[in-house]
Amino acid sequence: MRFLYAVISSSKTLYRCSVSRLINPRHSYASPSKSQQSTATHAFRRDSSPMDAAEEALRRALTEKQSTIDAQANAVRALKAAAAAKPEINAAVEALNSLKLEKASLERQLEAAVTDNAGGSVSREAFRQAIVNTLERRFFYSPSFNIYRGVAGLYDYGPPGCAVKSNVLAFWRQHFVLEENMLEVDCPCVTPEIVLKASGHVDKFTDLMVKDEKTGTCYRADHLLKDFCNEKLQKDLSLTAEKAAELKQVLALLDDLSAEELGAKIKEYGITAPDTKNPLSDPYPFNLMFQTSIGPSGLSPGYMRPETAQGIFVNFKDLYYYNGNKLPFAAAQIGQAFRNEISPRQGLLRVREFTLAEIEHFVDPEDKSHPKYSEVANLEFLMFPREEQMSGHSAKRIPLGEAVSRGTVNNETLGYFIGRVYLFLTRLGIDKKRLRFRQHLANEMAHYAADCWDAEIECSYGWIECVGIADRSAYDLRAHSEKSGVPLVAHEKFSEPREVEKLVIAPVKKELGLAFKGNQKMVVEALEAMDEKEALEMKATLESKEEVEFYVCALGKNVTIKKNMITISKEKKKEHQRVFTPSVIEPSFGIGRIIYCLFEHSFYTRPSKDGDEQLNVFRFPPLVAPIKCTVFPLVQNQQYEKVAKLISKSLTTSGISHKIDITGTSIGKRYARTDELGVPFAVTVDSTSTVTIRERDSKAQIRVSVEEVASVVKAVIDGQSTWEEMWEKFNSTTH
Amino acid sequence: MRFLYAVISSSKTLYRCSVSRLINPRHSYASPSKSQQSTATHAFRRDSSPMDAAEEALRRALTEKQSTIDAQANAVRALKAAAAAKPEINAAVEALNSLKLEKASLERQLEAAVTDNAGGSVSREAFRQAIVNTLERRFFYSPSFNIYRGVAGLYDYGPPGCAVKSNVLAFWRQHFVLEENMLEVDCPCVTPEIVLKASGHVDKFTDLMVKDEKTGTCYRADHLLKDFCNEKLQKDLSLTAEKAAELKQVLALLDDLSAEELGAKIKEYGITAPDTKNPLSDPYPFNLMFQTSIGPSGLSPGYMRPETAQGIFVNFKDLYYYNGNKLPFAAAQIGQAFRNEISPRQGLLRVREFTLAEIEHFVDPEDKSHPKYSEVANLEFLMFPREEQMSGHSAKRIPLGEAVSRGTVNNETLGYFIGRVYLFLTRLGIDKKRLRFRQHLANEMAHYAADCWDAEIECSYGWIECVGIADRSAYDLRAHSEKSGVPLVAHEKFSEPREVEKLVIAPVKKELGLAFKGNQKMVVEALEAMDEKEALEMKATLESKEEVEFYVCALGKNVTIKKNMITISKEKKKEHQRVFTPSVIEPSFGIGRIIYCLFEHSFYTRPSKDGDEQLNVFRFPPLVAPIKCTVFPLVQNQQYEKVAKLISKSLTTSGISHKIDITGTSIGKRYARTDELGVPFAVTVDSTSTVTIRERDSKAQIRVSVEEVASVVKAVIDGQSTWEEMWEKFNSTTH
Repeated sequence: MRFLYAVISSSKTLYRCSVSRLINPRHSYASPSKSQQSTATHAFRRDSSPMDAAEEALRRALTEKQSTIDAQANAVRALKAAAAAKPEINAAVEALNSLKLEKASLERQLEAAVTDNAGGSVSREAFRQAIVNTLERRFFYSPSFNIYRGVAGLYDYGPPGCAVKSNVLAFWRQHFVLEENMLEVDCPCVTPEIVLKASGHVDKFTDLMVKDEKTGTCYRADHLLKDFCNEKLQKDLSLTAEKAAELKQVLALLDDLSAEELGAKIKEYGITAPDTKNPLSDPYPFNLMFQTSIGPSGLSPGYMRPETAQGIFVNFKDLYYYNGNKLPFAAAQIGQAFRNEISPRQGLLRVREFTLAEIEHFVDPEDKSHPKYSEVANLEFLMFPREEQMSGHSAKRIPLGEAVSRGTVNNETLGYFIGRVYLFLTRLGIDKKRLRFRQHLANEMAHYAADCWDAEIECSYGWIECVGIADRSAYDLRAHSEKSGVPLVAHEKFSEPREVEKLVIAPVKKELGLAFKGNQKMVVEALEAMDEKEALEMKATLESKEEVEFYVCALGKNVTIKKNMITISKEKKKEHQRVFTPSVIEPSFGIGRIIYCLFEHSFYTRPSKDGDEQLNVFRFPPLVAPIKCTVFPLVQNQQYEKVAKLISKSLTTSGISHKIDITGTSIGKRYARTDELGVPFAVTVDSTSTVTIRERDSKAQIRVSVEEVASVVKAVIDGQSTWEEMWEKFNSTTH
Repeated sequence: MRFLYAVISSSKTLYRCSVSRLINPRHSYASPSKSQQSTATHAFRRDSSPMDAAEEALRRALTEKQSTIDAQANAVRALKAAAAAKPEINAAVEALNSLKLEKASLERQLEAAVTDNAGGSVSREAFRQAIVNTLERRFFYSPSFNIYRGVAGLYDYGPPGCAVKSNVLAFWRQHFVLEENMLEVDCPCVTPEIVLKASGHVDKFTDLMVKDEKTGTCYRADHLLKDFCNEKLQKDLSLTAEKAAELKQVLALLDDLSAEELGAKIKEYGITAPDTKNPLSDPYPFNLMFQTSIGPSGLSPGYMRPETAQGIFVNFKDLYYYNGNKLPFAAAQIGQAFRNEISPRQGLLRVREFTLAEIEHFVDPEDKSHPKYSEVANLEFLMFPREEQMSGHSAKRIPLGEAVSRGTVNNETLGYFIGRVYLFLTRLGIDKKRLRFRQHLANEMAHYAADCWDAEIECSYGWIECVGIADRSAYDLRAHSEKSGVPLVAHEKFSEPREVEKLVIAPVKKELGLAFKGNQKMVVEALEAMDEKEALEMKATLESKEEVEFYVCALGKNVTIKKNMITISKEKKKEHQRVFTPSVIEPSFGIGRIIYCLFEHSFYTRPSKDGDEQLNVFRFPPLVAPIKCTVFPLVQNQQYEKVAKLISKSLTTSGISHKIDITGTSIGKRYARTDELGVPFAVTVDSTSTVTIRERDSKAQIRVSVEEVASVVKAVIDGQSTWEEMWEKFNSTTH
């Protein structure tokens, strides 16, 4: 099964490296309109979304067949009108019927091809429904505020889901924060406007929305267009190859369409409100942040943070100091983030509140090597570099070291984090074959980003971006430096002073005062703010022409600067240190998305003992499993229950989360119940001295003494021993 | 030093059992006005806040002394006017001077007494400043968004603070969730209005606010009154004993004052805006929830949750099912909560966003025993029952079992949780002598609460409520049942059906229709809603008088019910189960408050080696310490650094958070630096084969081999061994 990457990755993405694409504030505050951008990028996507050849051939064949049928039908009609001989008419009718049969066969083939291209969406949906039913029935999660009919895009994690989540987060802390000595911080969700103004979110963090003009119901404009195109492609078999190509083209470009372009397409295709068929408004931007007001005055607007990263950036100075004023270092934060989605769908994948785990690794832009890079360089996994995407190939296994040395991955530190993310996800239980690292295309990245890769996991919704790993250069720190006036910089002390040539701009205040009086201050500031190029041009002009016209922003007009009003010169200075804004490399994890994909990758069914039903199993590794162990007294009696409680106590002491099931249900049913929660081990109490431990996936059992249970389970869970080793050990000694 | 509990515990409290007091919605929707309530409760507090006797005596003596001085001054003046003899005048003047000296002495005594009664506030503030300086300098926490001049009431946890917090939460999960097999859930912060309408927060979760009438600046009305009274009591020595008693009375009643009463006091005392001295508005309620809007339409108001508990209540049905439809069980949740405080002060103790950890233990109201109660019954600690507070005594050590068996603590389950909370807090490092469990006074509790105890920790701000442990009866589940229409109930199946007598109210609709026409429906509903007592009274009246006057709320008037309009009878029925709303016992933890108190209880200073400065130390137990171990190469050389890295690697493998300090600073300074972070162990590399491990508080050192470091540190940290045992072991083998 092949996926058109452009279609499937087009859903607007959750995390920062993509946010930056959405908010994309170029050259600090001056950002081009979205339509300007997308015009420039259309050329790319056009080649990269080729019409599927088989489908195209079928559509063409179908169109031709229809013409042939029309022609033949005319011929039959002509023969009948000319009262031709019966055998001649019969032969023509037979030919017509045979053509119709051929058309029907072509239609069936096209239907199959379309389904295939849509990713077998029917069977995928059935598979997903089976999982989601199990997850909701066993209370891994459920829509929030259910008794009040819920709120779209908000979910509760029930006990097993909450345990999985807290295991994933604990492992994240272990794998990243502890192993890399990262500086973890914990900042509030409530954020004052100025911070998100600096980051660009207040102005640019929007999605395009249309309204039902009569009822006021809101829709995401791109969703409606996408649904229309998909529906047409899948259900309208009479579509010409040209029309089909056009719709696919629209799907591929969906993310890049401006408000005007989206509006034009919606009008052109006659798309109306899905429920009422009412006309729709023109698309307009809706800011995705939840707004609130801080304090009682109503004068301090604030937002619920749309990401956790800003809390780290605004603390850069203190973190740098905490780290002994040394680079590189990484800060990390786990916390809630909020996006007021227009119309959330796709379950846990697109929600209005979610947990992010973000790392900001600050590094000298002149040295992006990483001391532990060699530990990951030999890893090999599915990578999907920009060039492969552009030439229509699919992802392939590439050794990480090769991707870095060839420059496919921009630098060692970025490569190191790609490797660490790979290890993190696969240790959680993500299937290696359904995990790829996809590089952002040039038009997907913000202008300032050096490189950006997404860890994408394939699930029933397609390839889903779950982790973004971006080299964002110095963008974020510079934005907050500018807005706050606090320099967020690092220093490199030279072992001995270096001589550098510096441009010195010295306005002569006396002369400027005489010439500009009250405006003097503004002129002086504008002169001092010139960059090197401007100053050198002014110097040259003054030397040749004695005066120069100079635009002063604050006055909104040109003034005349004379030679005696300023000196511009180059001076040699000794410098003892280099002052620079660090680059930041940012791995950003959508925890809910990772967990949902993990649910799908861990789920399978197997027949019950008597073969009359399919039983659900989650094959979570012990690291992730919500409960590590269940304890079952085989039959309901006081003796066995006493032993079960004894075992429970020793499991608690060993810190192993577990559950006792003393219901009178058959042991088979109880095994099925525990398998469906993904519990790796089941202890069955069938005597007062020894008990059995059953492993979930192999269903193999060993017999151990009551006293040994906790230590055996703990050894396997902590990874000091494997189940196979335990099986060897206890089956060779036998009981 | 003695504290007036009423003053110090008067700051409005963070947690639910107190919230319920604030929102206090009686009889579902009909709640009395605040002034009605407080009138009813004044009597209590008046006795419970006695004027300190010594202070009162001094104020009286001072007033008398002033009169004597005035009289003597008059006498002197009279003698002079009458041109009396010089010796006589001199003697009178001398007597006057001596009286003035006595007055000055009284003033000094009063000053001392006032300071003492205010809790030695000066020295406390100095102590607090020393801690807070250390905490902020070492980045345990700092005000959020500092580079933008911050936002009051929002704090960031820096790396050590964040590590302490995550250790506290991990231990909370271990101590409560794992050990008690609680059902942990994770629900969103964004909450639709209907949920908080049902809980009472939309209508009642308010503080009283006043505005500067010219600038619009907002203040908490009770804060201004409190500050005025405290300032007056501490600085105005000429205050009469009566006036002082009045001000103290106001302080004691602060929490119970209605808007009108507060406004009257503010006017009476002439209190103006603190910064501008402008007049103030009348007090009016301000809702403390952060409001927002869910989705793009602007038609779905929502709030950031003010507590996590509601997420559990609305999930009761699913949780009960998950637990096999069995009671008792407990659900737990850790998460952010939000309160838009009017003017936050007291640092980490009163913030606009904070982490709560809440437990809702659901139990049959007819059986509140607890299977593990015996495990805590022998604990003995400071308890402060209602009666002790009312009679002006202070908290005293009481065995928990005694408090429960005497009925001081309402039931076993409540007692069990009080014991578990005590163990939790003291294991974190909270000082037993500065921890007490204070029972709510009758007027502090909501009408539905069966009993309520706060774990209060004493710190420089006084006794601070850090955990609330309340038996909230069936209130919350009933509120959501009513609002949502979904029954949130439990079932107890009888082993055999029971015969019960039930009252049956059967309105005769035909007769009622003839009599009341369009109003029939409302009359029928009112009749059916009668409770047993009302119905039996009606039955009796109808039998004797044939008709009865009956008030119908929905009509706002009496109607006449005749005998033929209704039958009221008792019927015998067989019941197979009991259906009831469970009671909920709720321990609710303010994690930030606990952490701040822990900082204060862990802090001490000791002189440096050369005695010329005081060094700061946090005596965190290993469980809580942000970093467990630092590694120092004694001098900067490659060999030692290599060994340090080797040790670091083995510590990482053992999961021990640590830090290497390779700066060239003296070892003494590096020890001081690590002590100030509360790191329990420091490993100094002074050879390539063996190294020293130093314990923070004793400063004792042992010498172990490089290979042993990780296992020795791990054993002590995990509590498998004590430092003393390690010291014995390695000092007897010596190196």
